Amino acid sequence: MKAIVVVSGGMDSVTALYLARVNADEVRMISFDYGQKHKKELEFARWHAEALGLQHDIVDLTSITHLISNSALTSQTRMVTGTEVLVGKGFHDHIEVPEGHYTDESMKATVVPNRNMMMLSIAIAVAVNDKADIVVAGMHAGDHPVYPDCRPQFVRELTTVARTANAGFIADNFAIWAPFINVSKDVIVHEGVHLGVPYDRTWSCYKGEHLHCGKCGTCVERREAFQLAGVDDPTVYGS
Amino acid sequence: MKAIVVVSGGMDSVTALYLARVNADEVRMISFDYGQKHKKELEFARWHAEALGLQHDIVDLTSITHLISNSALTSQTRMVTGTEVLVGKGFHDHIEVPEGHYTDESMKATVVPNRNMMMLSIAIAVAVNDKADIVVAGMHAGDHPVYPDCRPQFVRELTTVARTANAGFIADNFAIWAPFINVSKDVIVHEGVHLGVPYDRTWSCYKGEHLHCGKCGTCVERREAFQLAGVDDPTVYGS
Repeated sequence: MKAIVVVSGGMDSVTALYLARVNADEVRMISFDYGQKHKKELEFARWHAEALGLQHDIVDLTSITHLISNSALTSQTRMVTGTEVLVGKGFHDHIEVPEGHYTDESMKATVVPNRNMMMLSIAIAVAVNDKADIVVAGMHAGDHPVYPDCRPQFVRELTTVARTANAGFIADNFAIWAPFINVSKDVIVHEGVHLGVPYDRTWSCYKGEHLHCGKCGTCVERREAFQLAGVDDPTVYGS
Repeated sequence: MKAIVVVSGGMDSVTALYLARVNADEVRMISFDYGQKHKKELEFARWHAEALGLQHDIVDLTSITHLISNSALTSQTRMVTGTEVLVGKGFHDHIEVPEGHYTDESMKATVVPNRNMMMLSIAIAVAVNDKADIVVAGMHAGDHPVYPDCRPQFVRELTTVARTANAGFIADNFAIWAPFINVSKDVIVHEGVHLGVPYDRTWSCYKGEHLHCGKCGTCVERREAFQLAGVDDPTVYGS
């Protein structure tokens, strides 16, 4: 069995990667630069590819960043001689990354339009091209309240349409495999510890600065997951 | 109503564009450079955007070309000092564009892995970002034998997953609108003539050279469509 694993560089997808290595005969990694403010996460994805000796592609989707700019993760402004200049066409005002709990209503600002369908569609294309059996993705139950494209119904429906779209060119039993879709992040940490995941080599913070900020939704969720799992948190937080 | 129209620069999607202009209050165009050998088609898409005064983005997906190289439309070799050098990683041998009828078995070499799902996923993202109501695509009945991602089942299932993936962020009645999905290409020509589509400003040939080759599947289909429709074919063919 061959698996294409979508790896952001965060805790969930990196744990899914280590799990896929145990279960699949062959593993290939794919990551995406869609202009996310925390593209620093990609350095961490790269680190695992090198550490594990896996084929890894970082797909450049930055030509769509200005098309999906109504999100706190992709809105951008550029400073030019002291004046804020909007980058690209149709640009929304700069949207701040919200602070608070990951499941708060305010976190909806971090939804990126149709993100998982775009990324998984490209991963599925690679699976077709490479005759891979599964595409692996790291969404989990904690994502469900805010992100509709992390819910089980989405994964089921996308598997169906992937088979239809590529009938005759993809395995009949091709599947998108989301091993953590019904578990919480602390369960992922538990499993990851058994798999030997070096969590100090993962990145969560949406702000993408030098240290994890400790205040944005994903930092709060990260810290909570280690606490609930009873595992030492190797992360250095800025606050 | 606002429509995002996926326009390749070929006859079908350009006719769908002119039809969308009649039906929608607002129209935005999107095209894709995925490393297709006939990327010349994009100049024709651009021509219509300028002629009609429409917002138009050409999305650069060339960072995935080497990942979807097992197709006659995307396989590439580059000549370096007389030696063929494979471009990118995991590259397949150069695959020739097949000649013959568009519905021949040999045309399966022109299938690009998961192409329509990738392009439509990005168009859906733009629809979410822009609060558009529909995404318009130009597939037609003649595509069904060879291209699984041009069949009605695919369009229906993709509409379903688009609503699920973006629940709360997209109109409940959002739809992918494929106006020609059950008609043949000559019917499109008929309709296009009524809509005033300048077909001399469309491009079909998969080879993407100076003139339409007249021999590849899509050239054969193009010529046949004009003949069946009883419409003068403005195309200059190389043979």
